[in-house]
Amino acid sequence: MNMSTDERAIRDLYAKWRQAMLEEDLGGVLELVTDDAVFLVPGQPPVRGKQQLAQLFEAARGQFRIEFKSEFDEISLHDDWAYVCSRLAVAMTPKSGGAPVHRAGHTLTILCKRPDGRWAVARDANLLAPDVS
Amino acid sequence: MNMSTDERAIRDLYAKWRQAMLEEDLGGVLELVTDDAVFLVPGQPPVRGKQQLAQLFEAARGQFRIEFKSEFDEISLHDDWAYVCSRLAVAMTPKSGGAPVHRAGHTLTILCKRPDGRWAVARDANLLAPDVS
Repeated sequence: MNMSTDERAIRDLYAKWRQAMLEEDLGGVLELVTDDAVFLVPGQPPVRGKQQLAQLFEAARGQFRIEFKSEFDEISLHDDWAYVCSRLAVAMTPKSGGAPVHRAGHTLTILCKRPDGRWAVARDANLLAPDVS
Repeated sequence: MNMSTDERAIRDLYAKWRQAMLEEDLGGVLELVTDDAVFLVPGQPPVRGKQQLAQLFEAARGQFRIEFKSEFDEISLHDDWAYVCSRLAVAMTPKSGGAPVHRAGHTLTILCKRPDGRWAVARDANLLAPDVS
């Protein structure tokens, strides 16, 4: 398999994100995004920057255990930035009990490579909708 | 105002797209996208390539007159690539009569510059939702 160092680093970033969500590790998530990251989600105002992302994370952490799986459709590398198309499936299990809520959809994400070589999410649009499959 | 040639060309692309939609000019729209363009829309499978985009256009053309306005939040240029964050408002007026349907939301778009210098939309995620404002 011929995978570049950058592609491997980007796949690794997604694995770290997944693990940080499982462990409810806010610091671990924030390490993976740029200071000015923007997250577009359906039907809500964009989430802008680490502080808003942290607020969202804390609100969700109180209510749900969040697990996700992602599959890559495309990782397109351009020097110090990349875009990624993926399919995301999320299970949100209420901590108060009850069945998990499933959501799934496509995502389009812009990542950039920092001067030290680490990649970070800069812009993300997720089109998650209720998953009834 | 200090606007680069590329930024001007990208703004011009959006103006051409808007005009092509108003004039129901499919050829005009298809000129503005790459052959392998992918459009992510909420709750539906991605639209892939010019043929699928043309099918969607033709289906809509039979039913609606489509007008949109877009405002740019960010145009980020990277050599022969760019990403654009914008806010889009669409009015779809049924040709059979009746009130227009309004949708609005954020978009994240990847564009690339072709060898002849013309820009084209390569990947697009739109998070349009019913606009009740």
